[in-house]
Amino acid sequence: MKNFKITIEYDGSMFKGWQRQSQGERTVQGELEKVLCRIFKQDRITTIASGRTDSGVHALGQVVSFKAQTSMSAQALRQALNAWLPKDISLKSVRLMPLKFHAQYDVINKTYRYIILNRSYPSAFWRERALYYPFSLDCLAMQRAAKVLIGKHDFKSFRAHDPLRVDKDTIRTVQGIKIKKKGAMIEVDITADGFLYKMVRNIVGSLIVVGRGKMDAQGLKMILNAKDRNKAPATLSAQGLYLLKVIY
Amino acid sequence: MKNFKITIEYDGSMFKGWQRQSQGERTVQGELEKVLCRIFKQDRITTIASGRTDSGVHALGQVVSFKAQTSMSAQALRQALNAWLPKDISLKSVRLMPLKFHAQYDVINKTYRYIILNRSYPSAFWRERALYYPFSLDCLAMQRAAKVLIGKHDFKSFRAHDPLRVDKDTIRTVQGIKIKKKGAMIEVDITADGFLYKMVRNIVGSLIVVGRGKMDAQGLKMILNAKDRNKAPATLSAQGLYLLKVIY
Repeated sequence: MKNFKITIEYDGSMFKGWQRQSQGERTVQGELEKVLCRIFKQDRITTIASGRTDSGVHALGQVVSFKAQTSMSAQALRQALNAWLPKDISLKSVRLMPLKFHAQYDVINKTYRYIILNRSYPSAFWRERALYYPFSLDCLAMQRAAKVLIGKHDFKSFRAHDPLRVDKDTIRTVQGIKIKKKGAMIEVDITADGFLYKMVRNIVGSLIVVGRGKMDAQGLKMILNAKDRNKAPATLSAQGLYLLKVIY
Repeated sequence: MKNFKITIEYDGSMFKGWQRQSQGERTVQGELEKVLCRIFKQDRITTIASGRTDSGVHALGQVVSFKAQTSMSAQALRQALNAWLPKDISLKSVRLMPLKFHAQYDVINKTYRYIILNRSYPSAFWRERALYYPFSLDCLAMQRAAKVLIGKHDFKSFRAHDPLRVDKDTIRTVQGIKIKKKGAMIEVDITADGFLYKMVRNIVGSLIVVGRGKMDAQGLKMILNAKDRNKAPATLSAQGLYLLKVIY
């Protein structure tokens, strides 16, 4: 038995998220497992991701582990996956790991990136890959306010409701929030030991309100302290969200 | 009568090129004219582009002019186009021009960009937007060799055959070739007073051979001097090609 760890990129726009679905919806896990079954000539290969990504969410560095009874080397698997994966999933690396490695449980932290196209006209190229936001944003004010979220907090105000997935423990540690402006693009990178449902999209939604000058750091702190989802702005769309990297 | 000049971006992957086609194929000109007819409530609006782009070719700064009998301001047209254009065409700017302005005849020069994804694995995000080339390329050697193409030359060796479009005059002036490496991406920008059919894709194809160390500047010069398409390497795919800007 071998335990493989692979790192993949995917363009989430044509997927109903990571998780395999019984109803035949196209998902990243579903496509990946189909290809792995073909490569290993097995009926069932079960993959474990660092975490699920929602419908429309992209990944630049999703990490997946899976076990297989095979003589195949990491290099041979790499070539096979490159040949068989659909074009909107691409393979960055393959590594053989000790059998005890688990892509979900062993995560130390993850970084998500939210990309905002911040200019007066939309882009044909970023239409499903960034949030188009035409009003000017003060990135420095956003960066300053973001400091109130750093550290170990109860992020209940930034957790969206999902009947199928209730995180009882809503305390997470945010290790970093970096806001970079690159031409018309604003990238918000958030690193944490874990994320609640839609937490990144809810935090960035609040930071945009700050960037518009309609809230200050104190206001953001009040939202955090309220522990009430109704106090925070609406969830941003999935199209700007990328799982950037996972640290083990 | 008003004469408008608009600058647009388009993701060429879902278009059969710029030019309107009778067979109902989806083209940029066809989509744009449909929207303009609706906005101006007219049966026919004829647009003129700085030049046609082929099937799959993208644009970051295509310039289009058209005349319309209307009281609409540039600003109002901008809003209407932003609302009605399909998502893979986006409007950068609208200007009112003197009636004699012609987007094709008045071009001083144009710049095309060819993007190469140069790393060991493909990308889910660049799959229709760059040429994936996994072998290492020496950009400095490419930049040095490119010098032999600068200036006024007969570029017949770099013109692809097209029975419908035979440029009798194959002399063009290339004003600049800039090769930039940005992480895994290589951008080749070529500026000229005009381009022959598939000239950019043929020149970049030759520069890649140079970048692989399989040809030097002297070899490139021999191809140029041969004035024979059969002497140059194969045409690269359309997916890496962008019309970047047009100067009037």
